[in-house]
Amino acid sequence: MEMASIGALPGGGVNRPAYADIDARARRELMQWAEAIGLDASLDPIGNLFLRMRGRDDSLPPVVTGSHLDTQPEGGKFDGAYGVIAGMEALTAIHESGWTPNRPLELAVWANEEGSRFAPTTMGSSVFAGAMTLEQATASEDEDGTALGEVLARFLSLHGEVPERPLGTEIHAYVEAHIEQGPLLERASRSVGVVTGIQGLRWFEVEVRGEEAHAGTTPRLARRDAQAAAIRAAAALAKHFEDDTDTARFTIGRWHVEPGSPNTVPGRVVFTIDFRHPDPDLLQALGDAVAPICRREASPCECAVRELSRSEPIHFPNTMQQLIGDAARAWHIEPMALMSGATHDAKPLHLHTRTGMIFVPCAGGISHNQAESATAEDLADGAQVLCESLTRLAR
Amino acid sequence: MEMASIGALPGGGVNRPAYADIDARARRELMQWAEAIGLDASLDPIGNLFLRMRGRDDSLPPVVTGSHLDTQPEGGKFDGAYGVIAGMEALTAIHESGWTPNRPLELAVWANEEGSRFAPTTMGSSVFAGAMTLEQATASEDEDGTALGEVLARFLSLHGEVPERPLGTEIHAYVEAHIEQGPLLERASRSVGVVTGIQGLRWFEVEVRGEEAHAGTTPRLARRDAQAAAIRAAAALAKHFEDDTDTARFTIGRWHVEPGSPNTVPGRVVFTIDFRHPDPDLLQALGDAVAPICRREASPCECAVRELSRSEPIHFPNTMQQLIGDAARAWHIEPMALMSGATHDAKPLHLHTRTGMIFVPCAGGISHNQAESATAEDLADGAQVLCESLTRLAR
Repeated sequence: MEMASIGALPGGGVNRPAYADIDARARRELMQWAEAIGLDASLDPIGNLFLRMRGRDDSLPPVVTGSHLDTQPEGGKFDGAYGVIAGMEALTAIHESGWTPNRPLELAVWANEEGSRFAPTTMGSSVFAGAMTLEQATASEDEDGTALGEVLARFLSLHGEVPERPLGTEIHAYVEAHIEQGPLLERASRSVGVVTGIQGLRWFEVEVRGEEAHAGTTPRLARRDAQAAAIRAAAALAKHFEDDTDTARFTIGRWHVEPGSPNTVPGRVVFTIDFRHPDPDLLQALGDAVAPICRREASPCECAVRELSRSEPIHFPNTMQQLIGDAARAWHIEPMALMSGATHDAKPLHLHTRTGMIFVPCAGGISHNQAESATAEDLADGAQVLCESLTRLAR
Repeated sequence: MEMASIGALPGGGVNRPAYADIDARARRELMQWAEAIGLDASLDPIGNLFLRMRGRDDSLPPVVTGSHLDTQPEGGKFDGAYGVIAGMEALTAIHESGWTPNRPLELAVWANEEGSRFAPTTMGSSVFAGAMTLEQATASEDEDGTALGEVLARFLSLHGEVPERPLGTEIHAYVEAHIEQGPLLERASRSVGVVTGIQGLRWFEVEVRGEEAHAGTTPRLARRDAQAAAIRAAAALAKHFEDDTDTARFTIGRWHVEPGSPNTVPGRVVFTIDFRHPDPDLLQALGDAVAPICRREASPCECAVRELSRSEPIHFPNTMQQLIGDAARAWHIEPMALMSGATHDAKPLHLHTRTGMIFVPCAGGISHNQAESATAEDLADGAQVLCESLTRLAR
């Protein structure tokens, strides 16, 4: 709640844009808490902040936990911040216990996970893990044409006298705690989820081109009605993506009609498709059918389907899932295995080291919303399992 | 083509907004042509302009033809202007023939048919015919909140020393020539259509309310996806309005999705329905089914259907259809009977006097578009039939 007061919105949410002064202020608050338990801060060139607890053998690669402190423009208190605070809580508990881990433990605050001003999402963790170069990231421009490179130096300077560290340093294992941002844990009345992986994603843009016509005078059979064609395509796609296991995620989030006049037959419709699936083969096969379905249904209109982005599903190592599940059961918490529908910093980290994730429920599955909410009990359970997992990994 | 040069657009179309100075300029040009053949101009309080040829018994109610000179913001050369020019051509031919009609003949230029700046459409003819009061019309405001009353006096003054005349004067019969604005005559290779009536119209606004959710994390069965629900409703409506005779006109011209982000399940969709039918019973029955269909298909989302406007179909008197058909056949033109899909000044005039309409084809049925086009031969045929009809009515 203290962290949520930094950038607090009247509606109960938080606005902490990545690389803004308020983002740096949140980090300075966190660094004060870290200093109180003797952690050492360091900052890499893209702005990822690390808070390190020395290990008995401090030359070993560290066990790392973390998440992000930046939010959506009208975000909630928990998305990202929970993983950082749960990590701080775990390190504080370990510190207070008097036990010294064999390996160093690090809490990472990944920069710009949301990608709201400077795309893409998970920028800091992607640059750290080598999935994106520093040059690509700093060239990213906001809507006004300002490049991240013009903003980054000031942001780094706002951290005070924090030592620099290189990108891509070796990590023994990475565990991230996060709110689920979906309804599954809440519906199953479980306080902790062991995340099996992150589903794959394909984004499409569908453009249907017909011909504008007078709504009163043009018979149906003489029309090339782009809206009617797009409706047929969308209805067929909804059927195509409907599965018995309710695994595929299919969303048409944007729909634009031209000219948009009630008494003119539309000449052009553009809509987006967000399709996600955990199975790489089905991600491929179901996604590849989008264009032929749209073309078939849109006739006699023309239809062009463009793939805007694609990311493959990942599967967290079974050993990491096992370790987190065992950690939960050691505290008499029965965890639920579930796939992540959203992307997280754990996705690029998975390219770099063995990685796992812990989910806790959020009310109604609502996220990216000021109404984001979670119970203290569930958040504590997640932090407990995180602490136990870090302890086992750092022994 | 001379008239189309007044307000000409680079794309070949015309922009002559009702009550604008360019609208008055078009009328001054027309008044010069009228003066050359001895017609007397007069202007009523809503800005309808009349150009009168005296009859042998000038005390008899006149036979009136006409249409409008105002256009859509990116309109064509022919919508409205054709009926005015064809009327002027007919009166010129009668003048040059040396024949004096028994009744007076009048060419009317109805004000503000398009209703683009000041709603509704067919404003001038509606006020003339008593379907709307002058006070209602002058209170109509444009998007900036300017009332027509503030604009009207200047517009009237731009006509020069034209005498005033009252609204609602008696008319013996009214015949209007217009481009079809649909594809039927062109497809049937006919140059002249006898219009049987103007179909009825119902406008609806459908609002679907669901719940915003994360596109990646929320399973289909846990969603209240307003877009998916609206697609189901729209697909069911398309089936509902599909008839074997291709008579019903069903158009979804506007479609608004909130929040409109590709990776957020939409929480709200609003779309419009333009439904037209010539049969009053089917206009009633098919239209009344819109709300129950939408509610059934939108579940588990909520759905509200609001009727925005409604106008009943009209049927032009058989005697007028017969007279126009006979006039065509007298010139060896085989006319086609067809319903008007669009509204015209003839609709309010039908409330006031016996009324008929003559259609000529336009290329591809395209109208309300700079690409509007028609052949000189078809336009001449229409003017010939109009002249013959006026002559028969004024004998």
